[in-house]
Amino acid sequence: MTEFDRALPDFRDIEVAARRLDGQAHRTPVLTSSYFNGVTGAELYFKCENFQKVGAFKFRGACNAIGALSAEVARRGIVTHSSGNHGQAVALAAAMNGLKAVVVMPKDSARVKLDAVRGYGGEVVLCEPGTANREATVRELIDRYGYHEIPPYDHPDIIAGQGTAALELLQDVPDLDVIMAPVGGGGLISGTAIAAKHHNPDIRVIAAEPANADDAARSFRSGRIEPAAKTHTIADGLRATLGTLTFAVIQRHVDEIVTVSEQAIIDTTRAVWARMKIIIEPSCAVPLAALIEGRYDARGQKVGIILTGGNVDIDQFVAASR
Amino acid sequence: MTEFDRALPDFRDIEVAARRLDGQAHRTPVLTSSYFNGVTGAELYFKCENFQKVGAFKFRGACNAIGALSAEVARRGIVTHSSGNHGQAVALAAAMNGLKAVVVMPKDSARVKLDAVRGYGGEVVLCEPGTANREATVRELIDRYGYHEIPPYDHPDIIAGQGTAALELLQDVPDLDVIMAPVGGGGLISGTAIAAKHHNPDIRVIAAEPANADDAARSFRSGRIEPAAKTHTIADGLRATLGTLTFAVIQRHVDEIVTVSEQAIIDTTRAVWARMKIIIEPSCAVPLAALIEGRYDARGQKVGIILTGGNVDIDQFVAASR
Repeated sequence: MTEFDRALPDFRDIEVAARRLDGQAHRTPVLTSSYFNGVTGAELYFKCENFQKVGAFKFRGACNAIGALSAEVARRGIVTHSSGNHGQAVALAAAMNGLKAVVVMPKDSARVKLDAVRGYGGEVVLCEPGTANREATVRELIDRYGYHEIPPYDHPDIIAGQGTAALELLQDVPDLDVIMAPVGGGGLISGTAIAAKHHNPDIRVIAAEPANADDAARSFRSGRIEPAAKTHTIADGLRATLGTLTFAVIQRHVDEIVTVSEQAIIDTTRAVWARMKIIIEPSCAVPLAALIEGRYDARGQKVGIILTGGNVDIDQFVAASR
Repeated sequence: MTEFDRALPDFRDIEVAARRLDGQAHRTPVLTSSYFNGVTGAELYFKCENFQKVGAFKFRGACNAIGALSAEVARRGIVTHSSGNHGQAVALAAAMNGLKAVVVMPKDSARVKLDAVRGYGGEVVLCEPGTANREATVRELIDRYGYHEIPPYDHPDIIAGQGTAALELLQDVPDLDVIMAPVGGGGLISGTAIAAKHHNPDIRVIAAEPANADDAARSFRSGRIEPAAKTHTIADGLRATLGTLTFAVIQRHVDEIVTVSEQAIIDTTRAVWARMKIIIEPSCAVPLAALIEGRYDARGQKVGIILTGGNVDIDQFVAASR
């Protein structure tokens, strides 16, 4: 049975993931902001995954997927490809478990990203840019060394791991009316949706993505996975295309996918920095931007928002958003 | 009896202040960072006053000083001069108590600072730049309207209010070996020192300031208040000169004043953003910068650091620190 034949993950998988993450991942705080309550007319609860290890929720999925491996498979070492948070997450989760991790990264990756993976103990293998090249390099490494691949989102253990953020948020704030997360490849929103609908089928699960990278919204409407077209968005964590598993979960459990303008993403990122005094990356601002821009009306409701990460090059952001 | 005849504030004043602040100010969280523990070799506890109301510890002093006023005095309205956090703090603390606040600000103040004071309900009176002009304008307003002045730091109720941050930190982490805060006018470090030495006379109380604005360190050495010379520092909250009361408390209770390079302040500000995912202003980075730059050796010790505020213009910082 291949990975893709496995049934979709369910709530029990998230409970198992929560036990695996206990003591490995941070239980991140939930913050509130009277300023943003005022601006949106809703009662907002921010689950701060920017304070998670490696600065992003991605650590949850990587940690769960690695924790699920048999000793024999784990011993062979782990490989993944990533130009962002997932690579760092795999590197750190592997190192914490005494395992070797190889991260395939495009040659043109920023120095700081290469350094981050290496800093967490990962081995970087450079490849030519482009998804096809990245996947081919991973394939070669697997053939040659027998590594085990941990994909970035389209895997039951990744989805279940990401779902633990919503699980914790709902433990802290059980009576949410709405829960929101950004959607890129769909790992986070899938896990979030499974956790939320199990907790209370009436919770509205809302995904948000940049209008300039609206493949998830288009897929949701058309009923089949639409490829991401050229994606010019500052929310660089949300450029991925949905996977087979994540799309299936989204179709079943997500109520709506809303899209947000670039200006709203930029303004909201800055507003969170200025008002909440926390660093979030632009991808992270998208759900709140949707409320502020009026793409979803949550007035009078209790809304949980997963703040996904805080890995942003401030100078680059300032230059790009001027 | 004039203000300046009053005895120096003591620990009981801080306890009174804590009761006044209960329900008005936030009890801010204490964060840790394994990264900065590694860099400094110490065990660090960060008291996050950047999450305080108005984004800075200044709210504590303003709130206490306003809470201490008799109904008759308060009714007349409050005046202060400030180009920064103190003005916002007075405006908000006054508004929360249904009182009028007038903030004298130099004509050349940034729009965002004027808007912030007005946003909290304060009335702005513009004056020519320069301390003498600011003080003259305050004097005029007092003569004309009978307002009560709340000074920025050299007042027992301000000092006692600022001391509540250390009081809370020591309640959360009672066995600190060292406590550090920046020094500008000296309100925060005075209150911190009174709280810490009452808690445990063996706690080392360390003040930190920019080498480019080292008037407190010079005063500490010479035994008299040395004026701040031309001060070119990015830590713009620390340009003030010590006051009579704050200097007296510092001489009695502070163990050492260390100075820090501009580069260390800039690098530490950025490092806190990147690693802790919280926004701090440059003035706030000075104590941690002192540890990183080796100006004080706290290896193997438990160190409390007051993170004073998060009100920073990111674009301006990026431009100035390039």
